[in-house]
Amino acid sequence: MRMQLTVGELARHLGAELEGKAAIQISGAAPLETAQPNDVSFLARRKYLPYLAGTRAGAVIIARELGMQEVPEGAAILWVDDAHRALADALALLYAEEPRRPEIAATAVLAPGAELGKGVTIGPYSVVEAGARLGDGVRLGAHCVIGRGCVVGEGSELRDQVTLYPGTVVGRRCIIHSGSRLGVDGFGYVLQDGAHRKVPQVGRCVIEDEVEIGANVCVDRGSVGETRIGAGTKIDNLVHIAHNVRIGRRCIIVAQVGIAGSTTVGHGVALAGQVGIIGHLKIGDGAQVGAQSGVSHDIPPGETWFGHPARRLNDVMRANAAFLKLPDIVRRVRRIERQLGTQRD
Amino acid sequence: MRMQLTVGELARHLGAELEGKAAIQISGAAPLETAQPNDVSFLARRKYLPYLAGTRAGAVIIARELGMQEVPEGAAILWVDDAHRALADALALLYAEEPRRPEIAATAVLAPGAELGKGVTIGPYSVVEAGARLGDGVRLGAHCVIGRGCVVGEGSELRDQVTLYPGTVVGRRCIIHSGSRLGVDGFGYVLQDGAHRKVPQVGRCVIEDEVEIGANVCVDRGSVGETRIGAGTKIDNLVHIAHNVRIGRRCIIVAQVGIAGSTTVGHGVALAGQVGIIGHLKIGDGAQVGAQSGVSHDIPPGETWFGHPARRLNDVMRANAAFLKLPDIVRRVRRIERQLGTQRD
Amino acid sequence: MRMQLTVGELARHLGAELEGKAAIQISGAAPLETAQPNDVSFLARRKYLPYLAGTRAGAVIIARELGMQEVPEGAAILWVDDAHRALADALALLYAEEPRRPEIAATAVLAPGAELGKGVTIGPYSVVEAGARLGDGVRLGAHCVIGRGCVVGEGSELRDQVTLYPGTVVGRRCIIHSGSRLGVDGFGYVLQDGAHRKVPQVGRCVIEDEVEIGANVCVDRGSVGETRIGAGTKIDNLVHIAHNVRIGRRCIIVAQVGIAGSTTVGHGVALAGQVGIIGHLKIGDGAQVGAQSGVSHDIPPGETWFGHPARRLNDVMRANAAFLKLPDIVRRVRRIERQLGTQRD
Repeated sequence: MRMQLTVGELARHLGAELEGKAAIQISGAAPLETAQPNDVSFLARRKYLPYLAGTRAGAVIIARELGMQEVPEGAAILWVDDAHRALADALALLYAEEPRRPEIAATAVLAPGAELGKGVTIGPYSVVEAGARLGDGVRLGAHCVIGRGCVVGEGSELRDQVTLYPGTVVGRRCIIHSGSRLGVDGFGYVLQDGAHRKVPQVGRCVIEDEVEIGANVCVDRGSVGETRIGAGTKIDNLVHIAHNVRIGRRCIIVAQVGIAGSTTVGHGVALAGQVGIIGHLKIGDGAQVGAQSGVSHDIPPGETWFGHPARRLNDVMRANAAFLKLPDIVRRVRRIERQLGTQRD
Repeated sequence: MRMQLTVGELARHLGAELEGKAAIQISGAAPLETAQPNDVSFLARRKYLPYLAGTRAGAVIIARELGMQEVPEGAAILWVDDAHRALADALALLYAEEPRRPEIAATAVLAPGAELGKGVTIGPYSVVEAGARLGDGVRLGAHCVIGRGCVVGEGSELRDQVTLYPGTVVGRRCIIHSGSRLGVDGFGYVLQDGAHRKVPQVGRCVIEDEVEIGANVCVDRGSVGETRIGAGTKIDNLVHIAHNVRIGRRCIIVAQVGIAGSTTVGHGVALAGQVGIIGHLKIGDGAQVGAQSGVSHDIPPGETWFGHPARRLNDVMRANAAFLKLPDIVRRVRRIERQLGTQRD
Repeated sequence: MRMQLTVGELARHLGAELEGKAAIQISGAAPLETAQPNDVSFLARRKYLPYLAGTRAGAVIIARELGMQEVPEGAAILWVDDAHRALADALALLYAEEPRRPEIAATAVLAPGAELGKGVTIGPYSVVEAGARLGDGVRLGAHCVIGRGCVVGEGSELRDQVTLYPGTVVGRRCIIHSGSRLGVDGFGYVLQDGAHRKVPQVGRCVIEDEVEIGANVCVDRGSVGETRIGAGTKIDNLVHIAHNVRIGRRCIIVAQVGIAGSTTVGHGVALAGQVGIIGHLKIGDGAQVGAQSGVSHDIPPGETWFGHPARRLNDVMRANAAFLKLPDIVRRVRRIERQLGTQRD
């Protein structure tokens, strides 16, 4: 379903200042390079300025901070303070999701004792085990497995092939993408007679409200106690969250991050892609960790760390900058020693 | 199912020295912070000592090496030599798995010629292809695919949505978690006429006995010959094992590790999270590799390596410690050169 | 199905120079250590020379550049210029895939309006949603989900449990391995009232012809516009490709690589395992990036980069070599300062 509207209507919706013809018809959005005359496009970063002059877009959302720009004749400009937010608003309007009639596939397996709220949708071949509860408006894709005693809160959506291990709790208005596994047994063993004996993983996995989890993510259950992802936190694809990790509210956890067991991550933390954090650490509220960093120490609230091993960003940046000078430094120290006749041991 | 027993009975079961009332009833286990009066809790690391004074647990397992501790009045102490092992024992007792009646779902697809042992369980919509053999007591979750000619040994459990490519062999008493893919085509191409031509991947993937594999793991089949995971090895979530890798017995391979083609890993090796190992290497028995390390050389038996590129731990630790001094060193060398009037080229 | 042929026939097929008896019967391929008398084996790297003398193989493919080698009595040698290519040829011949009769499982769910070409195979419990089109000879494994409006080109094969989000386009003669998710929502949010608000992900994911994608890979759809993987590119297991990434033709992307949003990768690029690339970068044609590197700058065409942060390989190798000398350098600078009576601040 695609909404059709005029640039004038779009400007009003976005609270944008319109420069150009209000009557242009818009029915989609596209990047500057590929936009067509009935598309709105956007310029949020100076980096993409070279694409502006050649765009065929009917209208372009531009961040005011980028200042006056040449746009092709006929294209309207929608000046806004925050181009990313305006784009989000425009997309939500233009690509409103069709309301889908709730439907439970004939092939869905509902165990006796599974409870379903109103307006639940269950895709083909999904399995809901005994004692599981799906809140009002929950939508499951195809081939989902909701284990015994799981709870999925009102309005949450699980895409195709999500599996919830028994006892997992998903809050309200969450989105879990395809292939994610929640409540998996943690990686816990004790050495006994030279072999690794499995420690029963009897805790649970709790995902609070409005969490989005990408595709093929793994979140372990608690060994005892809980693994918990705080409300409003967003997790990208292929992330690993080990047993008894606690993640606060409104965190951003980018793809392929791994967090080892029992580490606590505060509220509003941002972990860039491929970051690893060892177990039993404490990452303070509002901390930020740069891509691929390896965190082996607690991070105080509000600090930005980077590197492998991770340290305060500024310290690492200066050391990184000096790194390539290392062979030169070795050479210079050797020359000074020669000059001084220093005895080398 | 939860067992109910007294602290006295629990102490006897664990071989623990009991301090406190033997009559307290215990029916579960929980971390110190959230334990209730009918829970047993545990203190294995000094780090969690601050939680001890406030616990409501009915009993606490404490490692003898931590020495005398204040516990809240009324709580019993179970003194043990190895708190992790005692906890494992307590959990196995308290959370004994209900024996489940073997059951083959009516929707399971069993190809002609698939052989099933006694007491096999197959979940809804699982598919067992021609010539596959499932040993006695094998349990498959929902939506599994057991390819042509695969073998799954006695007592092994495959959780939901595990796929075994044709010819894959899984040993006895293994646990394979949801979404893992075993026997995948390896990543093998030859350059021909400027294009990457696929090398047929005709080998197989062999998982020996008592291996546990986490969720969303990928183990490739051999290109020719085998990829093999040794008995008793444990593999965490999202690990990648390439074609013709051979992993020894009783290894620990933590989440998101990647091992490139034809590398041989000895027995009793521990690879921490996100480690990468390039192809055609030899990692000696008992070697340990620190988190996120990038291994590009053979590692002799028993050594601990770390870093990117990985080197002996001690060398790397000292160099890492000096790393942040690098900008300071550059400055000091420059000053010495000025002082000496050294000519810089 | 296994072809049986003589070494003489194999030599002709490979264009190899035969040394030894042409009449030996060959029916399979195996590594030197495990080959049997009716197997052909191969020696492509000097590293595996020690296995040659003890092999029981009936014939061994050897690269001419390795020079004269002792093989066990009775074993034939097939001398070739490129042992990897000769092996690929031999495997394709010996392990020719049985032609399978196209078959659509009775349990496949085909939505009204799904279009199927000739000779399509669909495995049990797969779901093809409305408006999806599968070209001639397409093969889907079990439990696949082809979302609304997806297109899968002629001759492509999707192994078990692949999910295509709505609107995804897969080209011709592609292979997508088990558990891969194409067209996933990108990781896009705007901060609004202190919360992360989801930016609708309305673009699409396009996989061009002859692409192979490993298991459990995630490729996001465009936020607006496209994510695109160029023709002939090969992607290994557990790779993450974010929204609006564009990857050129004939690239090699090894396991566990992650590429952040809007980055453009040229043609013929090779990214080794676990490489991470931040967003909005440009990686030039023919660039190569070493394993685990963290790329945070554009890479010019044809260059080889390495390290974390990644830089030109030569510079990094020299600095890495000097890295372990760092504690020694610190000590030496201190001694020079003492010798000179330098004031340290």
